[in-house]
Amino acid sequence: MLGLMQDWPLLCHKILDHAARQHGNREVVSRSIEGPIVRTTYDQMRKRALQIAQRLERDGYEPGDRIGTLAWNGARHLEAWYGIMGMGGVYHTLNPRLFPDQILWIMNHAEDKALFVDLTFLPLVEKIAPAVKSLRQVIVLTDKAHMPETSLPNAVAYEEWLAEADGDYRWKSFDENTAAGMCYTSGTTGDPKGVIYSHRSNVLHAMIACMPDAMGISARDVILPVVPMFHANAWGLGQSAPMIGAKLVMPGAKMDGASIYELLDTEKVTFSAAVPTVWLMLLQYLEETGKKLPYLNKVVIGGSACPRAITQKFQENYGVEVIHAWGMTEMSPLGSLCTVKPEYAGLEGEARLDVQQKQGHAPFGVEMKVTDDEGVERPWDGKTFGRLKVRGPAVARAYYGGAGEEQFDAEGWFDTGDVAHMDACGYMQITDRAKDVIKSGGEWISTIDLENLAVGHPDIAEAAVIGVSHPKWDERPLLVVVSKPGKDPSKEEILGYMNGKVAKWWMPDDVAFVAEIPHTATGKIQKTTLREQFKDYRLPTA
Amino acid sequence: MLGLMQDWPLLCHKILDHAARQHGNREVVSRSIEGPIVRTTYDQMRKRALQIAQRLERDGYEPGDRIGTLAWNGARHLEAWYGIMGMGGVYHTLNPRLFPDQILWIMNHAEDKALFVDLTFLPLVEKIAPAVKSLRQVIVLTDKAHMPETSLPNAVAYEEWLAEADGDYRWKSFDENTAAGMCYTSGTTGDPKGVIYSHRSNVLHAMIACMPDAMGISARDVILPVVPMFHANAWGLGQSAPMIGAKLVMPGAKMDGASIYELLDTEKVTFSAAVPTVWLMLLQYLEETGKKLPYLNKVVIGGSACPRAITQKFQENYGVEVIHAWGMTEMSPLGSLCTVKPEYAGLEGEARLDVQQKQGHAPFGVEMKVTDDEGVERPWDGKTFGRLKVRGPAVARAYYGGAGEEQFDAEGWFDTGDVAHMDACGYMQITDRAKDVIKSGGEWISTIDLENLAVGHPDIAEAAVIGVSHPKWDERPLLVVVSKPGKDPSKEEILGYMNGKVAKWWMPDDVAFVAEIPHTATGKIQKTTLREQFKDYRLPTA
Repeated sequence: MLGLMQDWPLLCHKILDHAARQHGNREVVSRSIEGPIVRTTYDQMRKRALQIAQRLERDGYEPGDRIGTLAWNGARHLEAWYGIMGMGGVYHTLNPRLFPDQILWIMNHAEDKALFVDLTFLPLVEKIAPAVKSLRQVIVLTDKAHMPETSLPNAVAYEEWLAEADGDYRWKSFDENTAAGMCYTSGTTGDPKGVIYSHRSNVLHAMIACMPDAMGISARDVILPVVPMFHANAWGLGQSAPMIGAKLVMPGAKMDGASIYELLDTEKVTFSAAVPTVWLMLLQYLEETGKKLPYLNKVVIGGSACPRAITQKFQENYGVEVIHAWGMTEMSPLGSLCTVKPEYAGLEGEARLDVQQKQGHAPFGVEMKVTDDEGVERPWDGKTFGRLKVRGPAVARAYYGGAGEEQFDAEGWFDTGDVAHMDACGYMQITDRAKDVIKSGGEWISTIDLENLAVGHPDIAEAAVIGVSHPKWDERPLLVVVSKPGKDPSKEEILGYMNGKVAKWWMPDDVAFVAEIPHTATGKIQKTTLREQFKDYRLPTA
Repeated sequence: MLGLMQDWPLLCHKILDHAARQHGNREVVSRSIEGPIVRTTYDQMRKRALQIAQRLERDGYEPGDRIGTLAWNGARHLEAWYGIMGMGGVYHTLNPRLFPDQILWIMNHAEDKALFVDLTFLPLVEKIAPAVKSLRQVIVLTDKAHMPETSLPNAVAYEEWLAEADGDYRWKSFDENTAAGMCYTSGTTGDPKGVIYSHRSNVLHAMIACMPDAMGISARDVILPVVPMFHANAWGLGQSAPMIGAKLVMPGAKMDGASIYELLDTEKVTFSAAVPTVWLMLLQYLEETGKKLPYLNKVVIGGSACPRAITQKFQENYGVEVIHAWGMTEMSPLGSLCTVKPEYAGLEGEARLDVQQKQGHAPFGVEMKVTDDEGVERPWDGKTFGRLKVRGPAVARAYYGGAGEEQFDAEGWFDTGDVAHMDACGYMQITDRAKDVIKSGGEWISTIDLENLAVGHPDIAEAAVIGVSHPKWDERPLLVVVSKPGKDPSKEEILGYMNGKVAKWWMPDDVAFVAEIPHTATGKIQKTTLREQFKDYRLPTA
């Protein structure tokens, strides 16, 4: 027996319809690439998104076509998303921080048919576009006056291109499982893998994100997504802000402390989201200038583990609540947020910060478990760690083209590749990447914990821990360090410093000194290269 | 092209799974029918719901079977809902405030196969059950010790019945559009009409309800749903509270001021929801006793228009924020909530109360429009009223058995039967019922506005306005009044009092004095009877 409720598919453009109808005059403020701060509203953005959809259709693009975007956070980028989705197309965000060869590979793999690009990236596109076989058109997100000379034969200025459509268009209607967006993960190994969001997953994800114990955002918030739209959908804020009708402030290309502060202050931003590096720059700027944050209430920090000092400074010096969060491109991306359950509501000072070092708990719509290598669940005791697996309506069930099959199991669980423990209250903490964790005599050792400990030594600039083969224990930890300029700590000094701060059997068997530790394009330590480099290393204990 | 996200159907029992997993020790406190306050947790409720599902299946009930509930708000009632839904059954809430004949008619129409019943209603069930042809079993929500003698041959005590299942059961999995719950509307005319909620609509409705600009509830809230589970799903709180892991406090059969106050105080309730009558009783109790509400932050008030004095007293005397809301059984039930958009954020005092008299704005997931009789949209200007029509994933698309077809149009809009206006900020205010509104020379006159005005006269106990036929204007308003005991206001006094407070052409053409105004079982004015009574009335202006 079926229910008798309306068939009202969860389609992304309904979000923009709602924003235009119920919050039509709410502003979307952008720092433009051309320079000035520009203002629009949800009502105007909807009208322009309709023009985009109409124009794309007139230009011959079809439902299912992938349309790339290589752009900063701005109203034009966001209205382009909605225009693309509204005609049944798939917005495909490209990460300009990848190597040009990777972007080229990704565009060819996705078979992007058009590309919306910010002025900043036009030189990059001029280099790679000729090699993207599927690409028919490059739409430069500017007006005629700012349109530069370009070697691209098929480039048009966005505003001119847009003006040729009158917006007399009705959104296409289709199954809510239709593809809406696409984003490739930049793994540390192998080719990038494409995740394809559906309209349903985007809408449900936005609803989950808004909930009081997730981001907890309302129409009265002024939201500054510093996290880029090309970085896992700006954590969904491009959908959740219009869903609730919050004013949006888009930072464009400038994410330095002074520029972010200027927007926080002049636009009276109450809520923001970014990776730790951005907040470090802002806090440094505030300390140098003595400025305060009278409007900002809350920041979400994710992308990598948030250093304790950032949380502490925001809360104690500026009265800003920090929500540590974790997610993945494959999860749309939100997986957990460290908001306060009643069990932890009374905590203050260091005890509160201890909890906030965790990546938080999963909202309704994200199922989570930790297992051993055989898939047997591990207890939620706050210390036993295992492979972190997730399930939910905004979690990928496959990658585009079928790559990475081994990450998905028959029961629908996605293996995140992270290793984590869960506490009795459901708070998760990432302890390592699965491929980096060291398995010594059947027990797991977290390389991240050891690295965090090692970099506490005053003479160490950077540290990486890898497993090196051992005849008795299978693997044992090797600590690889880069000393600070002019410093020359000894192995004994370093191990002496660490001793007593971790379980004895976790202590590295040796320390190797190197001039440099290899990194990926997005700044992560490239442990595969490091393991290759040390594959024949003989530990003194072996 | 489809997205590649997980097929994770929105099923109600996943809400309870989430609550048990992430908020397992959170309490559900009930005032039991037997007397004492009893406590359980989401984890225990899930175990018992699994037992219920298992036992129902073993007793031969099948997916799609309607299982009635005739019970107050309590943990047993709620776990029964989840047990029924978890085996694919349909919980069917029966409103004990209806006349026994209506309940009997509804049970036969729904073909209820079993009935969970509170001790309170056993005498009622003993009377009607023999006439419900489909009914196989009556499960009395008590234990063996409290099980009374009963004339019902097929009655069992819940706790005994439950104990025979060990709970080793897996929820059934099925399409998210599967029927989950059922509720009949008690119209003022015609037979009751059945609304059938789906798992999808219940889950989406719960998500919408939790959002910061809707109820805005979190895991740190302690929620007291005074609004009965048999009254439009307790406004979704049976799903939204476990979804976010909030502590629940269930009032059982006692809704008087002292009993509600006791729970608010001892359980430190932060959030509650009820109809105006309940709040009137509470406020009266507080005024008599001088007690305060130190824990309560927010109340949602709906079911009928909230008198300004209630809003004012809660906010000014007790520091409790009031959210005026509107909904319908056909809408799961939430349609709009009067939370603060930035446009109204600065208002205080009377100006704030003016806005709070409105029923509020529609959240994402509820589309709203007002039209004339021909379906042409009317402007959102805060004064032009029209038929209120809604659309959304938690709005009915039909009634069980096909009744009331005329309320649904081809574009999916449901005609609420209410008449309302919308302001420029999207705030809706109900002005009348469509069948009551008076159409005078093509213009509409709100009977509710006239009634509210008339009862402000010190000598009037109750007032009703109906349209009476008029040779020139089609219809003109007649004011029907019941005078207060010992009072005898004249027609001239009353019209003199009203004069100048409404548009001249809205003024009633006459006043009729009656001893009593007819009411329905649920206390609404029965205007059909009144219109019948005055159908040959000749207005002095005619």
